[in-house]
Amino acid sequence: MAKNFPTREENYAQWYNDLVIKADMAENSAVRGCMVIKPYGYAIWEKMQAVLDKMFKDTGHMNAYFPLLIPKSFFSKEASHVEGFAKECAVVTHYRLKNSPDGKGVVVDEDAKLEEELIIRPTSETIIWDTYKKWIQSYRDLPLLVNQWANVVRWEMRTRLFLRTTEFLWQEGHTAHATKKEAIEESEKMLDVYAEFAEKWMAMPVLKGVKSPNERFAGAVETYCIEALMQDGKALQAGTSHFLGQNFAKAFDVKFLSKENKLEYVWATSWGVSTRLMGALIMAHSDDKGLVLPPKLAPVQVVIIPIYRKEEQLAEISKVAVKLKEALQAKGISVKFDDRDTYKPGWKFNEYEFKGIPVRLAIGPRDLENGTIEVARRDTLEKETYQITDIENKVEHILEQIQDNLYQKALSFREDNTHVVDSWDEFKDVIENKGGFVLAHWDGTSETEDKIKAETKATIRTIPMDGKSEEGACVYSGKPSNQRVVFAKAY
Amino acid sequence: MAKNFPTREENYAQWYNDLVIKADMAENSAVRGCMVIKPYGYAIWEKMQAVLDKMFKDTGHMNAYFPLLIPKSFFSKEASHVEGFAKECAVVTHYRLKNSPDGKGVVVDEDAKLEEELIIRPTSETIIWDTYKKWIQSYRDLPLLVNQWANVVRWEMRTRLFLRTTEFLWQEGHTAHATKKEAIEESEKMLDVYAEFAEKWMAMPVLKGVKSPNERFAGAVETYCIEALMQDGKALQAGTSHFLGQNFAKAFDVKFLSKENKLEYVWATSWGVSTRLMGALIMAHSDDKGLVLPPKLAPVQVVIIPIYRKEEQLAEISKVAVKLKEALQAKGISVKFDDRDTYKPGWKFNEYEFKGIPVRLAIGPRDLENGTIEVARRDTLEKETYQITDIENKVEHILEQIQDNLYQKALSFREDNTHVVDSWDEFKDVIENKGGFVLAHWDGTSETEDKIKAETKATIRTIPMDGKSEEGACVYSGKPSNQRVVFAKAY
Repeated sequence: MAKNFPTREENYAQWYNDLVIKADMAENSAVRGCMVIKPYGYAIWEKMQAVLDKMFKDTGHMNAYFPLLIPKSFFSKEASHVEGFAKECAVVTHYRLKNSPDGKGVVVDEDAKLEEELIIRPTSETIIWDTYKKWIQSYRDLPLLVNQWANVVRWEMRTRLFLRTTEFLWQEGHTAHATKKEAIEESEKMLDVYAEFAEKWMAMPVLKGVKSPNERFAGAVETYCIEALMQDGKALQAGTSHFLGQNFAKAFDVKFLSKENKLEYVWATSWGVSTRLMGALIMAHSDDKGLVLPPKLAPVQVVIIPIYRKEEQLAEISKVAVKLKEALQAKGISVKFDDRDTYKPGWKFNEYEFKGIPVRLAIGPRDLENGTIEVARRDTLEKETYQITDIENKVEHILEQIQDNLYQKALSFREDNTHVVDSWDEFKDVIENKGGFVLAHWDGTSETEDKIKAETKATIRTIPMDGKSEEGACVYSGKPSNQRVVFAKAY
Repeated sequence: MAKNFPTREENYAQWYNDLVIKADMAENSAVRGCMVIKPYGYAIWEKMQAVLDKMFKDTGHMNAYFPLLIPKSFFSKEASHVEGFAKECAVVTHYRLKNSPDGKGVVVDEDAKLEEELIIRPTSETIIWDTYKKWIQSYRDLPLLVNQWANVVRWEMRTRLFLRTTEFLWQEGHTAHATKKEAIEESEKMLDVYAEFAEKWMAMPVLKGVKSPNERFAGAVETYCIEALMQDGKALQAGTSHFLGQNFAKAFDVKFLSKENKLEYVWATSWGVSTRLMGALIMAHSDDKGLVLPPKLAPVQVVIIPIYRKEEQLAEISKVAVKLKEALQAKGISVKFDDRDTYKPGWKFNEYEFKGIPVRLAIGPRDLENGTIEVARRDTLEKETYQITDIENKVEHILEQIQDNLYQKALSFREDNTHVVDSWDEFKDVIENKGGFVLAHWDGTSETEDKIKAETKATIRTIPMDGKSEEGACVYSGKPSNQRVVFAKAY
């Protein structure tokens, strides 16, 4: 199986796109910008969902479901939301087809025009706050901690599988609180959940911080984010959590009677991650030989491949393999024993390497004689032969090592590609020639941020939350600054 | 908490609607016909999903995700699909909004008109078979066993929460096979999965059978279904599984190279259940006091309520209650200990009765003295006091009894409301005055079925699969028939 695709060095963008398609993660569909998520890719998304869903529930949230379609007028209710949110939305105008007069298929029935157009949700703040108005009367109804798993549509002009698609899958949390303090705590708590998920499960280190006003979500008072660094030196926003103040409560008139018997507007947050995380996961670890998946999110963690010439050998190997499979499964490890006779071992080795299966075990006739087994790691490509006795413990340990190694490798990469820069010439040079995160002083104005973006395409990815205060001069304007911020070109 | 709503006797339709809303299952949204599924309702749907998803995976299926939007032209490709499928669909015609010239909100940007309109999927056969064309080349690619969890939109004129909504949630399985036999086996296997889910988890007995040609899915060669009987004597179609023959393979030109090296069209099935099951679950068991949920699908199976006057009493009761909660949880039982001091025990009793919590445990100061506990069953409304020692085993057993009792009760109801009818007068009388399932002979023609429907509103719900052959005369036309079929008025 020759997977003909470029190296990262040759063409990073093409490497990514080919990898996604050839590893059976996703593909483009007949509808512009909408992808099909294939079973292997979807299995990873399901693992992500399961972990995140449990984290949301452990922090007190419940799931619910709100309509896909939103009346157009709702988008006009919150001023900065309507002003700032992209207008590229799918618009439903009719509700019926009819047989075409020429007898060839169907046409839109012009008699079935909606009085008010409906928008396919690009995000659900408006319809949810319209609903919360009915759910919230008293402080006893608060906090309201709700999450939704859903599809959303944003009519993107340039799309890339997982990273930017017209339709994508995500979760959106929408919470309501009695106090500002509690809402801010919630926004920060969910950012921590996202960071923990990225680092512990995806093995992907992230910077936590807030967005500059330019990059803030339309309607938010503060946007928190996690930012990861990809192997091409570009930043990827992996999740956001918004403190919405009372903006949506005011737009949709959601008030509650406080303990002190006063009518007050409710405080809000919203937070989300999407199938974009799939793109981040693929780009964070994979190499020129194919996918590399962290064991904790790999649908198949271990594959066992028999090496044999004669049927009798396969029978003998199978006995050992099936026992081993059960021993590994008993430890909660997902295992595939690939005893198909339609493919040769060499083909299988390539296939599973390409698909990023963390550990490959191979057993041949000589192994049977010697009581050994070959263990190959996908992350380091190292192969080693071990005694088969208690190999399940060894494999379990190796899976943990791989998970840890992938994180450390990504962390080292980020450290190697984070540059502290103090002059404008150096800034331009680093952004253009090295890439990565650039830590530089900024005067705090949108004007300067815009100019930097215009000249270099770099934007402020985040203002670090744990950033130490440091006096300095803006790398562009020379005006005073008291903290470095993180610049980068971004996905 | 007075839940003011009619009895089933007074107004069954209103009873159902009020129950759904007042028990916090779902509510109508700002968008005509689209519902909001509230957290308590959604928690039940999540349980249903988890069980079904495991059943699908245990039968070899994997999940994937296909686009929400389908090009209009796809609907013209399969002749009977386009002819028979309802034309009431949401049509996307534009992809951008813009600020309105008067500065008040947004309007549709007429410059952003799509060349070809997109339809929000009412079902996904067309887009999936367009995709399968790329996935299937050889018999080695078969069978292809894929399921999708998704939202779909059908522009229904008359909607009812869960039972018929413009947008609903469902799963749709779409499989491809090398032979007709294998595809038929798959359709029947998935019908069995649905029937097992309905009976073992929802405690709802169902009839298995096939649809008459009139009621068949547009594009199917055979439609299998499960039909349940509701308390008002109307039938509810709870799930369908379609053998699609080679219809979609031919429409989308999906061929494979067989083992014999011949190019052949692929054989197909599709099968689905939806949030309609929520409506069935609610109607199957609930009573005039509120929801009744089968323990296996209840988000909270046991609630513990402390009865106390003084704080010290609550402290003592809490010790016992927390220990009991842990003992129940160790058995995999979901428990809520409601120690809120903002509500009185009487209010809580009513609340949990209304919400259908299967078992309620109450502990007061006297119970502490005597080492006892009061156990109340939601299904029978019986209360009994037991020694608290080993009560967790007793509760576990009672939950099983409730699950079984609900099924038996629903089965008796169905038996009591199934009528064998041999004359047209009796048929009309039973349909009009008694309701329920009517077993009658039918001559096998669509013409007769149409006439019966026109005169009585009853349709053939199913032709039983295990129906014994029996010679007879059609109840309407008097023509010969060799099997009774099941008629009813239906949701």
